[in-house]
Amino acid sequence: MQKLYGGIEAGGTKFVCMVASSPEAVIEETRFPTTTPAETIQKAADFFRSTVQRGELKAIGIGSFGPVDLDPRSPTYGFITTTPKPGWAFADLCGGIHRELGVPIAFDTDVNAAAFGEHFWIEKNHGLDPFLYMTVGTGIGMGGLVNGKTLHGLIHPEAGHMFIPHDREADPFPGMCPYHGDCLEGLASGPALARRWGQPAETLADEHPAWDLEAEYLASALANLVLAFSPQRIVLGGGVPQHPGLLDLIRMKVRRHLNGYVKSDLVEKRIEELILAPALGSRAGVLGAIAMAVESNKEQ
Amino acid sequence: MQKLYGGIEAGGTKFVCMVASSPEAVIEETRFPTTTPAETIQKAADFFRSTVQRGELKAIGIGSFGPVDLDPRSPTYGFITTTPKPGWAFADLCGGIHRELGVPIAFDTDVNAAAFGEHFWIEKNHGLDPFLYMTVGTGIGMGGLVNGKTLHGLIHPEAGHMFIPHDREADPFPGMCPYHGDCLEGLASGPALARRWGQPAETLADEHPAWDLEAEYLASALANLVLAFSPQRIVLGGGVPQHPGLLDLIRMKVRRHLNGYVKSDLVEKRIEELILAPALGSRAGVLGAIAMAVESNKEQ
Repeated sequence: MQKLYGGIEAGGTKFVCMVASSPEAVIEETRFPTTTPAETIQKAADFFRSTVQRGELKAIGIGSFGPVDLDPRSPTYGFITTTPKPGWAFADLCGGIHRELGVPIAFDTDVNAAAFGEHFWIEKNHGLDPFLYMTVGTGIGMGGLVNGKTLHGLIHPEAGHMFIPHDREADPFPGMCPYHGDCLEGLASGPALARRWGQPAETLADEHPAWDLEAEYLASALANLVLAFSPQRIVLGGGVPQHPGLLDLIRMKVRRHLNGYVKSDLVEKRIEELILAPALGSRAGVLGAIAMAVESNKEQ
Repeated sequence: MQKLYGGIEAGGTKFVCMVASSPEAVIEETRFPTTTPAETIQKAADFFRSTVQRGELKAIGIGSFGPVDLDPRSPTYGFITTTPKPGWAFADLCGGIHRELGVPIAFDTDVNAAAFGEHFWIEKNHGLDPFLYMTVGTGIGMGGLVNGKTLHGLIHPEAGHMFIPHDREADPFPGMCPYHGDCLEGLASGPALARRWGQPAETLADEHPAWDLEAEYLASALANLVLAFSPQRIVLGGGVPQHPGLLDLIRMKVRRHLNGYVKSDLVEKRIEELILAPALGSRAGVLGAIAMAVESNKEQ
């Protein structure tokens, strides 16, 4: 029987579930709105059960919205923890899926899953490390692999909330992060763009000054990631960086910010190989979850 | 014969060399000014040879000023690379020591060595990870361990040059980093303190407003490191953070910056266990180099 793997991209608004053996061999895929934990877990489990005749489901990977508990020694391992999302605070997502389906579960953040997916399916054995993933959309999230494994630690990275230069004369918008005001997410998320300019980000014309400012903030943050991690790759996902021309503008500004200090051809001559869009596109998260399942099955 | 290990903290102004089997069993220690590569390497080699009767030198660890080449597959592995220091650009430090003494050499940056030393000798098997080390003195450097190994990658971390908020109305000092102006190092290194206030940092009185501003900048940078790495420990070394009261002020401001977003007791209740001074003091670098030698000998 064919070996199959399950992937769940557990988002605050929707769940994406997939059964596949690789990105080229997707057996089944579904998406549904995130309602209560019980109902949503049930729906996911029903989906995986419906594919039972297609092969043997070996493991499921879950990339989840957070914050999540990633410490295997913790009594709340696999839980979504202090989220403000009604009903989901301390929901046992990992345990819930495991109890329904009885297969091994690999669990991580949504952005670590996306990083893992790009690293696993696209980079294969090129060994690019550190390998980071930043997503810019409704929020700004970051994950990645360092020394071969995803970044965990105290909780998990939250570099979307980094503090960056903000010239209030040039940009009087105070930021809209409920915790930090003008942190990166407060200044540069999709909703921050919409609030600052009074129109949805996707309706801002190419020549609108919004994009130069957006590139400036994202370039400050990416320059900081280059300085902090010395990464060999940063994948920049999410809806906002897809705006035509923005990625090139960001690259140019990252190089200008670093100003010759990081002496690497990858910064100075080939920055399009250092900072790039996800090859897996909007499926990086769920295909990353599949990759986590494949990898966890190898380890056993 | 007793197993001995060598350590070199290779700085731009001085070299510290040590022979020891542990921090409690230091056999011999010396320090001398950094002159030309040939002369300096010779002096270090003579020192290690002079201890030959005290035991068997199994390996030498080197923690070096940078930038250095840490890629074992590179033809310039173990070299100091693009330093402006006269005579030292592309000096083969690792190879020079190896050719003189014929023992295995472990090589890393000075700050990675200091991180490794604190992690190895002080934390032992507590498994705190990521484990970061930031030093604030003439420059600002950062190193650390993530997933059990020191941070390498594109080159090595340079988080001392991170871009942080700078309110030019409150602090009109433009910064003094030759590459970035008002990056962290440009605003908060020892020389930046001296230039901004017109007197050496160590002569600034406790109640001088310099310290609150200094704490503000370092807290922005440390908050960014907490957000980016989710570390379980950050050791804050170098001369500047030793100013009485500064470390507590920094801790308070890091917590205030994060503002409840990172929900961990280590941030909210026990931040003195998250951010602390090096237990090995100013010997963290050279004792870290010794630890690297011990570890490399284990691996063989």
